[in-house]
Amino acid sequence: MSATDQSIAALVISVDAMGGDEGPAPIVAGLARFLGANSDTHILLHGPKAELEPLVTKKKIGESITFVDAPDVVTMTDKPSHVMRHGKSTSMWSAIDSVRNKEASVCVSCGNTGALMAVSMIRLRKAEGVNRPAIACLWPSRNEAGFNVMLDAGADIRADEEDLLTYALMGASYARNGLGLTKPRVGLLNVGTEEHKGRAELKVAHDMIATAAPRGDFEYVGFVEGGDLPGSRVDVVVTDGFTGNIALKTGEGTANFVSESLRAAFKTTWFSRIAALLAMTSLSRLKKKIDPRRVNGGVFLGLNGTVIKSHGSADATGVAAAIELAAQLGRSGFSDKLAARVASAAVLAQDAQTDSATKD
Amino acid sequence: MSATDQSIAALVISVDAMGGDEGPAPIVAGLARFLGANSDTHILLHGPKAELEPLVTKKKIGESITFVDAPDVVTMTDKPSHVMRHGKSTSMWSAIDSVRNKEASVCVSCGNTGALMAVSMIRLRKAEGVNRPAIACLWPSRNEAGFNVMLDAGADIRADEEDLLTYALMGASYARNGLGLTKPRVGLLNVGTEEHKGRAELKVAHDMIATAAPRGDFEYVGFVEGGDLPGSRVDVVVTDGFTGNIALKTGEGTANFVSESLRAAFKTTWFSRIAALLAMTSLSRLKKKIDPRRVNGGVFLGLNGTVIKSHGSADATGVAAAIELAAQLGRSGFSDKLAARVASAAVLAQDAQTDSATKD
Repeated sequence: MSATDQSIAALVISVDAMGGDEGPAPIVAGLARFLGANSDTHILLHGPKAELEPLVTKKKIGESITFVDAPDVVTMTDKPSHVMRHGKSTSMWSAIDSVRNKEASVCVSCGNTGALMAVSMIRLRKAEGVNRPAIACLWPSRNEAGFNVMLDAGADIRADEEDLLTYALMGASYARNGLGLTKPRVGLLNVGTEEHKGRAELKVAHDMIATAAPRGDFEYVGFVEGGDLPGSRVDVVVTDGFTGNIALKTGEGTANFVSESLRAAFKTTWFSRIAALLAMTSLSRLKKKIDPRRVNGGVFLGLNGTVIKSHGSADATGVAAAIELAAQLGRSGFSDKLAARVASAAVLAQDAQTDSATKD
Repeated sequence: MSATDQSIAALVISVDAMGGDEGPAPIVAGLARFLGANSDTHILLHGPKAELEPLVTKKKIGESITFVDAPDVVTMTDKPSHVMRHGKSTSMWSAIDSVRNKEASVCVSCGNTGALMAVSMIRLRKAEGVNRPAIACLWPSRNEAGFNVMLDAGADIRADEEDLLTYALMGASYARNGLGLTKPRVGLLNVGTEEHKGRAELKVAHDMIATAAPRGDFEYVGFVEGGDLPGSRVDVVVTDGFTGNIALKTGEGTANFVSESLRAAFKTTWFSRIAALLAMTSLSRLKKKIDPRRVNGGVFLGLNGTVIKSHGSADATGVAAAIELAAQLGRSGFSDKLAARVASAAVLAQDAQTDSATKD
């Protein structure tokens, strides 16, 4: 058995079965779909074993699964601070601890984002050189990979120039390992592409990221605008979590609005109803292309271990996509590579500041 | 002649014929389209008369037009500071001065946004009670009016709590006069709808806007998210110009991406090509619904006079839409109504602060 075979055989993913809007059934269904094409992966499934075992037996995936019994569930309304103090017996806490204890490479949960980030922070701790962890999301785009990466999608509402540099490094590393891009193109989100535009911290970050690019192994394209998020000018878009979250929800809302209007247009006349039938294959291909379920999985970056947040309302397709992403990141050894990159972030930032001081 | 007839007869709009990407031809074509349905409106057309007159004669709209000869043109690359110092003989300056001199109710220009805002600021001056003017844009939405209003779309990258309150008042006034809504619903853009979420200034603005709502004659719905921009929960979305500009460009970029993917989907098979033919009427209705040209016209709010910024790349349809919006605002006496609203903004802000101090 070669080293590669061994690492593939050893792939273990930790899955929080609870906390989704519809309970554990869609999670187990998504797992079954994933395992159908990835029988070499082993799953640690966290939650009330008595409730989960019948679901797993029904889907006939028992041999790929080890149950980790955890009686409690973090609900969507639980406050992060409450979960941090009283959440030790929850499936979410248990799922994260499997990554902490090196029993699994990546953790996937559909639970409450705030609580998942809070528990991930205290159990995994921030990686060396990271001040603010970030959530990276995939954005359907005109690029060949079909997606761009945007971060921070909402882990923290603030980001200073050093955080933005760290996001550039982490985002580039994620694009290499998650999208298979050798030298990702990174851009900084702003209200214009001219160098004099935007907030003060963006101009400082602009210089720092440009300086760090050669050693960070990415290409820096400079400032980008909202229209570049689904565009082909850039692979990784860096922004603070306030702006990123608004952009993400605006993009999702707009795509839903257009799709809904399209469906309505196809129902207006008999001609258009027939047209909808004829175009069904093409339209379902389009739907698949812009389907938010395919981009399900916000990745927490900047911790000692990788955690993927799946949508609370994800169905089996969405859950399978999130676990597929976890497997890809696990196979590529992403956590270790990212840690190596960000460990040098502080040094890079220091260099960048010295460089710009010299330049002045 | 009744007072209403008189005010309709007296409607004069000032149009900057120059500064668009394609020169004056699309502007004159848009004017002709507008005048076809609004022969009672008079236009002051600013630019080099020798160049404009043949275009106007060809379109046979000479009797509705008075030329205001202005030899120079503000280009897309001219810096605002340069135009402020040396722009007196430009068509843009001249077009704004017609509003300043009360010869026209509203000014429309396709020129460079930065220069247009800068010249508008120095010639019209900020209205009493306004610290930062804003650009309000229309957003295709699920609401009955077909549009929501968002401001600031990018006049200023900063906005403190008092600016956000002013934006709420101005946006509500615009929705009343531009969209015909009696009691507009106003929301404040944030990363979540819970009261504890977001930046500090947003929490303060939240309380101030809530306090001002009854006297500002609007309903305050609280925090809204990016997904509400095309939604039906709110009519007016208030945010700072940095976030607003990113949201606007993200929404436009996403809508373009989906439309482009749709066109591609209809070309994949013979079935889908036939389907596209059958569905043509429905699809053109959809296209019209989400056509960015229909929402052409960012309105500068908070100055002594109304200025509408039309897209630099607007074609005749886009220009006609911007002039139609100008006519609607001119007919409703918007500038005076808005001035009256914002004159009380400072008082309202003061009250809100006192109220929240008392509350604590």
